[in-house]
Amino acid sequence: YQSPSEYEKYYRLEHPAPELLSRFVYGLPEFYRNQIVSTSYLANPGCFATAIQLAILPLIQQGFQGDLHITGVTGSSGSGNKPGKVTHFSTRNDNLIPYKVLQHQHLGEIYQSIRTMSSVDPLLAFTPVSGPFVRGIWVSVSIRNHMGLQPDEVYAAAYYNAPFVRLVEGIPELKQVVGSNFADIGWATDGHSLVVTVVIDNLIKGASGQAIQNMNLMFDLPETAGLMYPGYLL
Amino acid sequence: YQSPSEYEKYYRLEHPAPELLSRFVYGLPEFYRNQIVSTSYLANPGCFATAIQLAILPLIQQGFQGDLHITGVTGSSGSGNKPGKVTHFSTRNDNLIPYKVLQHQHLGEIYQSIRTMSSVDPLLAFTPVSGPFVRGIWVSVSIRNHMGLQPDEVYAAAYYNAPFVRLVEGIPELKQVVGSNFADIGWATDGHSLVVTVVIDNLIKGASGQAIQNMNLMFDLPETAGLMYPGYLL
Amino acid sequence: YQSPSEYEKYYRLEHPAPELLSRFVYGLPEFYRNQIVSTSYLANPGCFATAIQLAILPLIQQGFQGDLHITGVTGSSGSGNKPGKVTHFSTRNDNLIPYKVLQHQHLGEIYQSIRTMSSVDPLLAFTPVSGPFVRGIWVSVSIRNHMGLQPDEVYAAAYYNAPFVRLVEGIPELKQVVGSNFADIGWATDGHSLVVTVVIDNLIKGASGQAIQNMNLMFDLPETAGLMYPGYLL
Amino acid sequence: YQSPSEYEKYYRLEHPAPELLSRFVYGLPEFYRNQIVSTSYLANPGCFATAIQLAILPLIQQGFQGDLHITGVTGSSGSGNKPGKVTHFSTRNDNLIPYKVLQHQHLGEIYQSIRTMSSVDPLLAFTPVSGPFVRGIWVSVSIRNHMGLQPDEVYAAAYYNAPFVRLVEGIPELKQVVGSNFADIGWATDGHSLVVTVVIDNLIKGASGQAIQNMNLMFDLPETAGLMYPGYLL
Repeated sequence: YQSPSEYEKYYRLEHPAPELLSRFVYGLPEFYRNQIVSTSYLANPGCFATAIQLAILPLIQQGFQGDLHITGVTGSSGSGNKPGKVTHFSTRNDNLIPYKVLQHQHLGEIYQSIRTMSSVDPLLAFTPVSGPFVRGIWVSVSIRNHMGLQPDEVYAAAYYNAPFVRLVEGIPELKQVVGSNFADIGWATDGHSLVVTVVIDNLIKGASGQAIQNMNLMFDLPETAGLMYPGYLL
Repeated sequence: YQSPSEYEKYYRLEHPAPELLSRFVYGLPEFYRNQIVSTSYLANPGCFATAIQLAILPLIQQGFQGDLHITGVTGSSGSGNKPGKVTHFSTRNDNLIPYKVLQHQHLGEIYQSIRTMSSVDPLLAFTPVSGPFVRGIWVSVSIRNHMGLQPDEVYAAAYYNAPFVRLVEGIPELKQVVGSNFADIGWATDGHSLVVTVVIDNLIKGASGQAIQNMNLMFDLPETAGLMYPGYLL
Repeated sequence: YQSPSEYEKYYRLEHPAPELLSRFVYGLPEFYRNQIVSTSYLANPGCFATAIQLAILPLIQQGFQGDLHITGVTGSSGSGNKPGKVTHFSTRNDNLIPYKVLQHQHLGEIYQSIRTMSSVDPLLAFTPVSGPFVRGIWVSVSIRNHMGLQPDEVYAAAYYNAPFVRLVEGIPELKQVVGSNFADIGWATDGHSLVVTVVIDNLIKGASGQAIQNMNLMFDLPETAGLMYPGYLL
Repeated sequence: YQSPSEYEKYYRLEHPAPELLSRFVYGLPEFYRNQIVSTSYLANPGCFATAIQLAILPLIQQGFQGDLHITGVTGSSGSGNKPGKVTHFSTRNDNLIPYKVLQHQHLGEIYQSIRTMSSVDPLLAFTPVSGPFVRGIWVSVSIRNHMGLQPDEVYAAAYYNAPFVRLVEGIPELKQVVGSNFADIGWATDGHSLVVTVVIDNLIKGASGQAIQNMNLMFDLPETAGLMYPGYLL
């Protein structure tokens, strides 16, 4: 966060070192590569924040203004290893459990990111859900495509040099990225609406893998070092 | 369907008996109870169509005009017992698999139902997903609440005498209705957006249970006969 | 337990009311029906203990002496609703986790039951396993059939008047009893070995359902009251 | 198989090239390393056969004679990608489904292997089970330890130079080997009985990983080439 008050709003905690905030760069390499390569202080994005921004920032960059209706389903590993009600097997198995609907704390960093690209705040209506699997995040964004955006062109332009983003035909399945640092993106349109789906492994592209990707950039290593082969084959 | 051409559009089949279509009543008891009690010909709704209409028809009845962004996740029993790729355990376990995004065939009966209540077709952007569980349908509808609808009032008015609809505090979990004919409905608002979630058991309220509910009404039996006790306790 | 020392051995607790132990009857109706109908004090069996005894007591009654090698897999509901490592979804999903191998506390009540029927203690080698499902217990017993026992005859004789025991052709699946008070039993032989499999719902026949079955007998109600219809249809 | 008649007995097919059988070496590197390094014809073991032999051959090598009661649970990937009843998600989820009890076709290659080490055929009573997970095989062997074998010594001696066998304290969980070529082995004893558990990934140590391990030996490469790092970290 650039401002301590934003941090407090979303995390309900006073930031312990507000004087350091301005030094930090936001570690989403697909959009902040230039800042990342020249920083020594990096904030790694949240898992939902990563998947959502990979879906919507290309639209924002194209000037999209309007409402973004987002559903995201996350695996249990996103809750860490501390046992609790929502990670109890008897609760979670065969279930879908929405939580923090319209008030997830990752919205803060997403809005901040949008403001670097657009002067108009869109409406982000985000429904997070706990899903019956361990690894992975599935995010789907649904909009009225009133500007007639061509998703093939929009996403190809946004990610032409992003080694971990794969634009797929049709809509991706969650499991095809589990065990890898890939973010797979697909979409469907019908003339009125546009639905964009992003899948990542929350523990890799949504956490430690992205941190390594950022580290690679900060230390002038190949962006894919330690990430591309052969782990993703699993 | 009231018209053979609508049927052909969504099912890509010529209707085998178009002359009978006009005799049939649509069996969603929460909205068509009066027609159901006096018919001898009844068309039982699809499982997604049931869950989606229970979420959106109360809004339509209040005059809502606008875009409805819908995500629905269904269990494998919705695909029947014939084995196939999307019901193969190795594919479906730990996975989310979108299909027919923006083109699901249940949209036809939903639009037809909306037209009995509103002169304006809303935009229905529907993303169906195959989920890693056997039973249940989870549907979430996200809208910009530009009319300032009060969901507490809207849904209480719509379902005050519907024995199988339970309005819950917060957002329902999928599993709480599995094994019963209940449809549980919950919502969240933030001043701009409204998210409404509906959960049903696709095999009961989404299929055979609703058929029994309709039969009860057609034969002047108590609406809950054979459905309320004790099955739902499981 | 008939003796406080046995209780202490298996539960590592001093029994709080040893003077009451002798009044209690062991509530496994398929073998202790006569005592149950005339008692006011009843100890409901453990879930693994129920499934294992339904498999092995008919063999013991026929005079079987030898080794009984038992594997049992239990659902997460057997651990109650308190969260912990072994019920954490991230641990349990897609996993099999053995625990207390050769030292499960239910062995005590099983040995006690065997001693009412046989003067020779068999070897019970029991491997309990935590399985990736919520409800159900699957138990398999493997023996050398050195006495040439005919399982069709042995089990038919043992359960001819047991309304909740179903002898099935082939080997039962776990799920076919979930939601019911049934114990399904099947077996396979090859001339040398005999494998007997029992499946129950740990929450019903392994807990509350069996308690109701016992209560029915104690209060001179039909043994199946409240248990047979229609719950098991789910 | 060394003999065509054994092949026919277990697979119920006439062997298409019986004249080639004698050239083939059985590719279980932990026991046949010397033959493997000097062959050009190799038969890769079955997945259950691998796990079972890793558990029992060390006992046979120590002269164990007696009954071996074996339970094995396999993931759905063992059935390949062809859909069928037992791999249908609605059937397999939350379920345990025994099959081919006491007659699994892998017994043939296991008996053949035993005969290279012992003049006495033990009793193998094997209960295979289809489990609700995609990857992995869990095998548990239960015996009366009438010879007083010390498993710590037996297994340490058998596997001191086997890079993919890990002897663990306590009993291993299935998931700890998924994604790797490791076979983890643990045991429990109580003075009378001995239970030995082996877990492998059926697709790796139970199939393609073992094939690579064999190829490495045949081509004089390091046994762990392509298998040890970093894939197993997943």
